[in-house]
Amino acid sequence: MLLHLSTWQEVEAYLQQSQGIILPIGSTEQHGPTGLIGTDAICAEAIARGVGEATQAIVAPTINVGMALHHTAFPGTISLRPSTMIQVVRDYITCLAKAGFSKFYFINGHGGNIATLKAAFSETYAHLEDLQISNAQNVRCQVANWFMCSSVFKLAKELYGDQEGSHATPSEVAVTQFVYPEAIKQAPLSPEVRTGHRIYSAKDFRQHYPDGRMGSNPALATPEHGQQFYELAVKELSHGYLEFLSTE
Amino acid sequence: MLLHLSTWQEVEAYLQQSQGIILPIGSTEQHGPTGLIGTDAICAEAIARGVGEATQAIVAPTINVGMALHHTAFPGTISLRPSTMIQVVRDYITCLAKAGFSKFYFINGHGGNIATLKAAFSETYAHLEDLQISNAQNVRCQVANWFMCSSVFKLAKELYGDQEGSHATPSEVAVTQFVYPEAIKQAPLSPEVRTGHRIYSAKDFRQHYPDGRMGSNPALATPEHGQQFYELAVKELSHGYLEFLSTE
Amino acid sequence: MLLHLSTWQEVEAYLQQSQGIILPIGSTEQHGPTGLIGTDAICAEAIARGVGEATQAIVAPTINVGMALHHTAFPGTISLRPSTMIQVVRDYITCLAKAGFSKFYFINGHGGNIATLKAAFSETYAHLEDLQISNAQNVRCQVANWFMCSSVFKLAKELYGDQEGSHATPSEVAVTQFVYPEAIKQAPLSPEVRTGHRIYSAKDFRQHYPDGRMGSNPALATPEHGQQFYELAVKELSHGYLEFLSTE
Amino acid sequence: MLLHLSTWQEVEAYLQQSQGIILPIGSTEQHGPTGLIGTDAICAEAIARGVGEATQAIVAPTINVGMALHHTAFPGTISLRPSTMIQVVRDYITCLAKAGFSKFYFINGHGGNIATLKAAFSETYAHLEDLQISNAQNVRCQVANWFMCSSVFKLAKELYGDQEGSHATPSEVAVTQFVYPEAIKQAPLSPEVRTGHRIYSAKDFRQHYPDGRMGSNPALATPEHGQQFYELAVKELSHGYLEFLSTE
Amino acid sequence: MLLHLSTWQEVEAYLQQSQGIILPIGSTEQHGPTGLIGTDAICAEAIARGVGEATQAIVAPTINVGMALHHTAFPGTISLRPSTMIQVVRDYITCLAKAGFSKFYFINGHGGNIATLKAAFSETYAHLEDLQISNAQNVRCQVANWFMCSSVFKLAKELYGDQEGSHATPSEVAVTQFVYPEAIKQAPLSPEVRTGHRIYSAKDFRQHYPDGRMGSNPALATPEHGQQFYELAVKELSHGYLEFLSTE
Amino acid sequence: MLLHLSTWQEVEAYLQQSQGIILPIGSTEQHGPTGLIGTDAICAEAIARGVGEATQAIVAPTINVGMALHHTAFPGTISLRPSTMIQVVRDYITCLAKAGFSKFYFINGHGGNIATLKAAFSETYAHLEDLQISNAQNVRCQVANWFMCSSVFKLAKELYGDQEGSHATPSEVAVTQFVYPEAIKQAPLSPEVRTGHRIYSAKDFRQHYPDGRMGSNPALATPEHGQQFYELAVKELSHGYLEFLSTE
Repeated sequence: MLLHLSTWQEVEAYLQQSQGIILPIGSTEQHGPTGLIGTDAICAEAIARGVGEATQAIVAPTINVGMALHHTAFPGTISLRPSTMIQVVRDYITCLAKAGFSKFYFINGHGGNIATLKAAFSETYAHLEDLQISNAQNVRCQVANWFMCSSVFKLAKELYGDQEGSHATPSEVAVTQFVYPEAIKQAPLSPEVRTGHRIYSAKDFRQHYPDGRMGSNPALATPEHGQQFYELAVKELSHGYLEFLSTE
Repeated sequence: MLLHLSTWQEVEAYLQQSQGIILPIGSTEQHGPTGLIGTDAICAEAIARGVGEATQAIVAPTINVGMALHHTAFPGTISLRPSTMIQVVRDYITCLAKAGFSKFYFINGHGGNIATLKAAFSETYAHLEDLQISNAQNVRCQVANWFMCSSVFKLAKELYGDQEGSHATPSEVAVTQFVYPEAIKQAPLSPEVRTGHRIYSAKDFRQHYPDGRMGSNPALATPEHGQQFYELAVKELSHGYLEFLSTE
Repeated sequence: MLLHLSTWQEVEAYLQQSQGIILPIGSTEQHGPTGLIGTDAICAEAIARGVGEATQAIVAPTINVGMALHHTAFPGTISLRPSTMIQVVRDYITCLAKAGFSKFYFINGHGGNIATLKAAFSETYAHLEDLQISNAQNVRCQVANWFMCSSVFKLAKELYGDQEGSHATPSEVAVTQFVYPEAIKQAPLSPEVRTGHRIYSAKDFRQHYPDGRMGSNPALATPEHGQQFYELAVKELSHGYLEFLSTE
Repeated sequence: MLLHLSTWQEVEAYLQQSQGIILPIGSTEQHGPTGLIGTDAICAEAIARGVGEATQAIVAPTINVGMALHHTAFPGTISLRPSTMIQVVRDYITCLAKAGFSKFYFINGHGGNIATLKAAFSETYAHLEDLQISNAQNVRCQVANWFMCSSVFKLAKELYGDQEGSHATPSEVAVTQFVYPEAIKQAPLSPEVRTGHRIYSAKDFRQHYPDGRMGSNPALATPEHGQQFYELAVKELSHGYLEFLSTE
Repeated sequence: MLLHLSTWQEVEAYLQQSQGIILPIGSTEQHGPTGLIGTDAICAEAIARGVGEATQAIVAPTINVGMALHHTAFPGTISLRPSTMIQVVRDYITCLAKAGFSKFYFINGHGGNIATLKAAFSETYAHLEDLQISNAQNVRCQVANWFMCSSVFKLAKELYGDQEGSHATPSEVAVTQFVYPEAIKQAPLSPEVRTGHRIYSAKDFRQHYPDGRMGSNPALATPEHGQQFYELAVKELSHGYLEFLSTE
Repeated sequence: MLLHLSTWQEVEAYLQQSQGIILPIGSTEQHGPTGLIGTDAICAEAIARGVGEATQAIVAPTINVGMALHHTAFPGTISLRPSTMIQVVRDYITCLAKAGFSKFYFINGHGGNIATLKAAFSETYAHLEDLQISNAQNVRCQVANWFMCSSVFKLAKELYGDQEGSHATPSEVAVTQFVYPEAIKQAPLSPEVRTGHRIYSAKDFRQHYPDGRMGSNPALATPEHGQQFYELAVKELSHGYLEFLSTE
């Protein structure tokens, strides 16, 4: 059930059955010469919808832009500052919690979002308690990173070994190829790609990772791989979501 | 050209040709018993992509959640506070302006966004001048409300007369029916629907507009109407965008 | 009744009769070679006091500085950023709403304030509901722009035609001449004055409107006209205020 | 020279002669049963204009609302939060400093403003250095409290002794009587009035000072006293302003 | 009783006896060629602990970094902006007030903190009332500046006369020598040191006070003096704290 | 070299040799019936100073209060909100970066700080680039969590097995016993202690972990263990710091 394709009365009815909601969150950022700028949002959205179908959960509109300040030296990247993103997440959860939702499951496609999301959850719990809304104490948020699912991780290791890398990875590129086969890109990739340098400022990032990849070889990706990753992630996160809902 | 389906190198090439970008912005809010919660985002996104195709412009990911605080007494509505939304818009434009974009054309699907968007533009112009980025003085933003296109307005008047109303209108519902025919909703609509009360707080809104409609009869909408509205809006806004680009 | 010339006990007594308050809001910004920097505040204050007398309403101190970032390339302009102004308006209304006021009628002298005021109202309604103050749901705010009164608009058209323009207009200059005859200014005005360029950044504004006027010929203004505008605005807005108070 | 009665070209000319500006700042707060809610703004404005005339300085529009949170349990009081007021002051100074002003002399009528003003000055100096505007290093701000002038203090002691008190004082009430003789109020004042309790929250304030006075007997005030205070303050602050301007 | 060396159960027991807490606050800023960067925090912490012992009060961890923007042109200085510090103080007090503390006694070692602390107190009182926590009305905060104790002031005058100065004073340096005899510094001090220039921006400060001292001769300090100052301050502030607690 | 025991001239000299600085950061939060409220700050400070000595690095004053909102249902806990902490960290780094520091090594004693610290680093890198300070691109920040050192982790496993738990752990309690042997606490600990429930709101935390421990048995701690942990952490983090400094 997709929130944006529902009516408020359908949401009202849903809340009689469940107080859980899935929120896909991605990023709009460079993903190397062949990766789509929307990669993280595309993956999160597709997988979230798969989980929503599998679990009868409602799925919120995708948060397309996340915390990607370190990619902003590449054109096309859009990022919120962490302080902005905390307010955004707070606003989302506050509206939904007032309406009766209490279990917020963020299916996340971007490692750079994790820290700010967790900070936002803490900020929001305290805010809801201050508002004294009736279900404040029951509100729970969780980040579920599809790319860190153990089944996904295992397959990526099998298929790509070290060439999985840590940004613009073949696994995420594969998922976008599965979702948008019409948007598969070709571009020359230098065989050598740097790895191991931590992430600091945007300019430092671009200096160390001049084409945007971090140790990855996205040329290995195929739409078929993408489908496999998609299915593994949906299965594992569906399990995760149901477990999250059932936690006392 | 869709930003999220492009690579950063494609964006770099695009910027050699144009510094314009189209940003669809909608809302996630109740639209009466038969209107989709995502109506405003759906319309803005579809029309923005149509304009993008017609004008060879790049289209950013849709801002799905806008300023809809007055709808938050209905479940399913998500809203940013205006102060949050100003920071979000500032962050979007700042990232893109640093990369070289200078003409920001927001195709908007929600009347409630207009004031905050305009406030955000003012805030952002001053911020960019403070940052002393090279093209600060050239940055220009515009809100283009598809539902206020004269051709759209005229057709709505012809088709629906007074039953167009001002929220959950048949014209916007029609566009969503055209875009998502699989999500056409049926529900009883009381023949009498209030109109003319201004918008204040969320609770006041729901008290005066108990099913969420403001003077509208969305039962009049058809997917065929939706296509007509879509085409008119794309045509008129394509013209508007090109004019915006060419303004000295 | 002027708030600043009242005692708190008089306000307490007033609140037994009425929960309405009039807040004049202007701007401190360039108004061309002959227009006063305080034009928008002067007009709003004078008219608001006239309305206050006519309707027995209490009138708050004038908000002299508003949102005029686009005029800041001219010396003497002072502006709040929109994000600041939202907090200011929120603080004003919150204090007064806690004391029992619930109908806030902003008589506004500056077009540039409108968007931010509306954003501030939305922010404030939500804030008051969060505070759970007893009359939160009843709080209502309205912007009444004296220069958009139909009677004012009509007279300006009759007197000045196209030379009314859209900034440093003869109508607003006339009102200031009526209020401050001792401060009527003379300066050479180039017969040609630009019009039609939208408002973006401060530098862009000054580049396109080098003497600060937007299509206007303030040399047409007279104190007698000013009195006429003043009287029309007071009459129309007095009616508007009473209607606002009486809205169920 | 009053900023609001000047044109931008007159300001431009002024800046060739002087970079100083006087900013009156008051408050909108209860002043006991007979004191005007606008007392602090009225005094600051009148005295600032007197100083402006005596020193040929430009005088900005009065900041009518300051930091008076502790008075908000009395109806009619309006206050900014300190965090809001810091942004307001920052915005004022930033606009004016960019235009070339560098000496900001705040003539203040309210003790409760002092701390926040000083905090705002510190915030602003750092902000201006961050903006790298050309005269950032030369910007200097000063609070001049008319009621703390030694000549004023001495006269108040002579005229009123201990009955001067510390809020709704006869000296400030006298100045308002001099400025607005038409608004002299009469009300019974209990002969005993509390003193010596520090200022904490708004509710605590009202509990300890139930009619709003702090140890003062404003019944002693006369318009003639007001004129004396006015003249002493203008003289002493005119000297202070010139000294401030001339400091190397 | 030191908060950081206590358990939460000990705090719970303490709250049965007292709702008072002492919060030392200093600064991390240059103190001339021989003064320690931590001087203000060291003094505040040592004296606060002495007061805590004398009065059986609980002492919070020291706020080491305060408002020292004007010292930031010297390396090693760390400062919060006033707007940040207000939030910090608000967060501290809110946590502790929710737990039951209501009397907050800040023992302060830095003149530059006073204005921002007072602004923060006002902001916090209003915030606590908005939160509607049970003891909001009883919360009281006070700044106690050890260096302004009359006994301290008198001794400094006797020992150093005019050479006490106003920053990097021999009295505060003496206290640090008493607390950290192993960190007594020697460096050539120019016999002439400027005085009397007010504090504006960081660069202006360094230009006028090139070695960081303001009219002081810290070479006069001895650890024995430090002990005397320490004992006087502890005695006077212990009295002050108990009086603060007992105020009805 | 401790920053607070240094002079600004010593810092200036240090910066000729190194641009690195160690910042201990802890928390002020409940640590179960026998753990000190200052545990996280105590451990971070002691280990940071050890690392400072071993590597000749300068050590900043300890940030005593961090992000511990989830512990605030226990008295004595003090927490910053994440949005506040981001501003605090931004202010610290900005001051120090302007002075010439560029390598910021945060030795952290509290898991709850990690997300907000990382968010703050991202916010700060972007801020410094906006300020255009000369070394913005070189600024690098790292969180080093002493309790996640592999050597520490291994020893904890050997000594305590599963009874290490995840809050109020015997390892951290042991370090505080080593540092403050005079503050070793005794209290009855229920043999059964819950584990495995994630962290959400403060009230939820206390409900699930009623005495504050999360799966730990701090009764196993000894000062001798503490010394071992201390030495392992100092050694491993000294290596980590030097590696951080030397990274190209």
